[in-house]
This record gives sequence, structure tokens and C-alpha cells, in this order.
Amino acid sequence: MSVVYDRVALIGLGLIASSMFWAIRKAGLAGEVTGYARSEQTRETARRIGLCDRVCDSAAEAVDGADLVVLCVPVGAMDSVAREIAPVLKPGSTVSDVGSVKRAVIEAVGPHIPEGVHFIPAHPLAGTEHSGPESGFAELFRNRWLLIVPEGGADEAALARLRALWEGMGSHVDVMEPDHHDLVLAVTSHTPHLIAYTMVGVADDLRRVTDSEVIKYSAAGFRDFTRIAASDPTMWRDVFLTNKDATLEILGRFTEELFALQRAIRTGDGDLLHDYFTRTRGIRRGIIEAGQDTDAPDFGRAKVGE
Amino acid sequence: MSVVYDRVALIGLGLIASSMFWAIRKAGLAGEVTGYARSEQTRETARRIGLCDRVCDSAAEAVDGADLVVLCVPVGAMDSVAREIAPVLKPGSTVSDVGSVKRAVIEAVGPHIPEGVHFIPAHPLAGTEHSGPESGFAELFRNRWLLIVPEGGADEAALARLRALWEGMGSHVDVMEPDHHDLVLAVTSHTPHLIAYTMVGVADDLRRVTDSEVIKYSAAGFRDFTRIAASDPTMWRDVFLTNKDATLEILGRFTEELFALQRAIRTGDGDLLHDYFTRTRGIRRGIIEAGQDTDAPDFGRAKVGE
Repeated sequence: MSVVYDRVALIGLGLIASSMFWAIRKAGLAGEVTGYARSEQTRETARRIGLCDRVCDSAAEAVDGADLVVLCVPVGAMDSVAREIAPVLKPGSTVSDVGSVKRAVIEAVGPHIPEGVHFIPAHPLAGTEHSGPESGFAELFRNRWLLIVPEGGADEAALARLRALWEGMGSHVDVMEPDHHDLVLAVTSHTPHLIAYTMVGVADDLRRVTDSEVIKYSAAGFRDFTRIAASDPTMWRDVFLTNKDATLEILGRFTEELFALQRAIRTGDGDLLHDYFTRTRGIRRGIIEAGQDTDAPDFGRAKVGE
Repeated sequence: MSVVYDRVALIGLGLIASSMFWAIRKAGLAGEVTGYARSEQTRETARRIGLCDRVCDSAAEAVDGADLVVLCVPVGAMDSVAREIAPVLKPGSTVSDVGSVKRAVIEAVGPHIPEGVHFIPAHPLAGTEHSGPESGFAELFRNRWLLIVPEGGADEAALARLRALWEGMGSHVDVMEPDHHDLVLAVTSHTPHLIAYTMVGVADDLRRVTDSEVIKYSAAGFRDFTRIAASDPTMWRDVFLTNKDATLEILGRFTEELFALQRAIRTGDGDLLHDYFTRTRGIRRGIIEAGQDTDAPDFGRAKVGE
């Protein structure tokens, strides 16, 4: 694999940025990778574990001379970070991000990008329930989608270069329009997360079932929800606040459907339930065939504790 | 491991029964295991893959002379199966089941159990999204809970023997009261399944997002929902129809909470969202510590396709 960018700057050093560093280093995609995190503790951790070739004490210092700057901070922090680095951005360089919401990032970052610098928003559809600089690993993006969401006409050469970086990290790359991206993600990620958070909250509130019972008897179903509901609170708060319209639309559809199934349970309409559950089963097959998940029974969880 | 029962009969040969057979055989817990499934095709499959020492063409034949009979059929089929085998049940033998709902099973099966036969309902908190005789494996119950739910005073010796069988298959055994069992499972399993089915249905319905997009871009979140929503439709239809009250109660609590979070999104109350998401994260840690799930990033899914 050949070097795609001489200098890459990662702003924000959580799960995604740390995974990017390990993947870039493993594939030799950059000459040097600098990093910055607002928290001094995070910077110290990064230095301790060798995350980034150079950890800087300011975003401006990390960005100085970089050919690619990737904003890996929560969506709510994009505006202030973009404002801070704008003056030192190198002419001809590219600014990208990894935010889960794209319209809001375009509105927050776009205005700060100076003439002659390419702004190409992106979103890797990869993650785990873990967060922080120590949670990253080089394989996170392998066989996962990376959506490039250019606002208007992005520079073809700059886009091709960013694509090469992500493909070098193992991702499949697609290009998508911002608003459509936000709707698709509201369906495949944002609303499911809110629902999982809610269900876990309900279990926690319940008086007649103790937390220890919930935890002890957390069979498949709730257990998967708790994994989703363990994701980074700040990141997810920002996702819902910045993808408000699409999330609320999908939530509306969800409650509408839920009430229909609830009514079927109340009235004992077994046929409706059976037909519904049979239909949803088909989507799962599609995902397995699309290679976006493993078909191993229960993710091999049956082996836990062996 | 020593033999716990000379003869075990498994009625219904799906994921749970087939896993029981492989686990019983691996640990040498029974002298002979007979099996019966209503579908001829299932019986043929069982014979082909060597599932059960003897596959019978009638439930009565499989039960004849058995020291333990385990009903592994959907909850809705328990009544008719119990009625069919009642006349041939061996005096002093034990009848148990693996149904996900216990009050309904007790009401369906209990009246058919003759004097001198022990009826000890049970529920293994283990499963995968796969079903059928070929989906079973010996490790399914290892480090998973088996809830014994005796109605009134069960015979101590008979209960101890059933406990020994399940512990021999690797399960941890607890005893629980039927109605409490149904409430706990409504929280940890039944309601989460209904919610997952609903979300997958919504995605399938959506006009502006194609199924192929949903499948392609199924990041963590929705992907886990599809796994849950791929579970056996007949089994789950029966679960909801027979655990109606508890499921509807928890669903009520769920929608109440969901509307509160929806309102926080609409009004932009980031603090409420952040606090909520931080609280739910704690439950996850409890489950990891309780050994009921793996802490491996994304269940090692990042390795998919490597």
C-alpha cells in the first residue's frame, strides 16, 4: 500500500480516530499522523499507548501543514473546532469528518473553510459500544461502508484521494446526498439507538423487577439493547439534537406500527403477528447475504465463559 | 458425568430440543433420548443428522416408558401435545417444558398431567435467531440461566433431578414463581423482541429508503434488531398471545418513556438525553460483570469477512 497523504491530522481521539490511526499505520497510508484531543487526560493516554506519531496540545498545532484534517469530535463540537483550525489550514488540503449526521456538520463546518481548501464530509458506518482512545483497532472499518457526502460539487481529485484512504483502511465507499444520508441513518442507526436506550431505561425504572434480575436474566433481546445503549452519551445526544427532523419522522412511523402490533396482541390477532414476524425475517437474510453481519449462532456468544 | 435419566423424550425438535440432545449426549446425561416432531420433514431431517437415539412417528411412542418428557413445542401447541401424551405417561416420571411463558403453559399442560406424574415447568434463557432441528449445538445452554418454575409445591427429588440434568448441560439453575417469571421475561426478552420486529417492519415499509439501502447501510443498531427480528415467527406469536398482560404493561411503560425522550429531542433538551444515556450505560456494565455477554468489541464482528 502506498502513502495517500504525507500528513494527516486527527482532531478528537476517540474510537473512530484511534481506529483510523491504527488502520492508516498498518496499511502505511500516511507519512505522519498528528493528533489532538481537548482533554489533557486523553492526550496523555494517546501518548502512553503510542496513538498518533505526534500528539499536539492544540488543534492548530496538529493541523499545521496537514494535507488531510479529519474532524473526529461529536457533531456538537464541530463548529468550534472548525473555527479554531480554519486560520492554519494548508491551501489545497482537505478537511473531512466522521460525524453520524451530515447536514448539521455541513452547516457547522462549511462556513469556516477558507477558499482553496476542500471540504468533503464523510461517515464511516462502523463502531462498537466502546469509546475513547484505547478502544480503537485497525480492523474496525474492514468491509464496512464509508459514505462520502459532498455538498455540491466536490473536487474530483480530492474526493478520489479521500476515497483511496478509506479503501486502504478496508472500507467500501459510496457517495450520498446529505439529506438522504440523514434519513437513511435515522432508520438504520439513530432511531434503533433511541429505542434501545428507552427499553433499557424502562427496565431500570421498573419497581417489581430488580436491576439484578434484569441483569441476571438478560437473555437475547434485552442483552443486545444494552450493548447499543452503552454507546457514548455525548455523541448520541448530539446525533439526536442535530438529526432531529428525520429521527422524529421515523419515530412517528415506529410508534404507529408499534400500536398496530400492540392492538393485535390485545385483540389476539395471531395471524397479523405471524405475518409481520415472517416478513421481518426476510430483511435479516438480506443483511447476511450483503455481508454486513455474521450468521454465526448468537455471534458465537454461546461460547462465552468457556 | 453420570446418567440422570434412563430415558428422555423430546417432543418438538427445534433449536432448543436439538441443542438439548447434543448437550445430553456430550455429557452422557441420559441412557436413551427419543424424539418426535409433528412435521414428517423435521423427523426425516432429525434421522438424517442423527438427532436423538430414536425418532418416533408419534408423540405417544416417543413418550412411552420415558422418565423425563420435555415439551419443546411452541406455547400454543402445549395443550394438544399434553392431551395426546397424558395416557402413556409413566407413573413417577417427570414432565417439563422449555416454553418462554410459564403461566400459560401451566394452565395448558397442568390439567392433563395424571396423578403420580410430576409436572415441573422450566425455561432455558438461551437461544439464537436460528430455528429448526439443524440449528442446535451442545454449548447453547452453557453459562446460561435455566429457570425452574414449579406450580405450588413440586416434588423435591424430581426437581433436584431436573436441576441436575440442566446443570449437566452447563446451565445455572434458579427457581422462580410463574407470574414473576412472565413479568421478568416481558422486560428482558418479550418486549425487546416486539420492538425489534416493529423497527425492522418500519424500515421495510419506508418508501424513500429502499430495502437495499437499509440492508447495505445496516450499521450497528439496526443490524442487531434484524437479528432479533429473525427469530421464529410461530414461537413469538405464541409468546405475545400468551404473555399478553405483562407485555402490554411493559409496552405501556416503554411508550411513556419513548415519548419523554421524543419530547426532549423536539425541544432540544440535551441534558435530559445525556443523563438518560449515561444511566443506561451502567446497566450494560452490570451484564458484562454478570458474565451474561461478551465484552469483545462489537462481538468481534469487525473480523467478519476477514
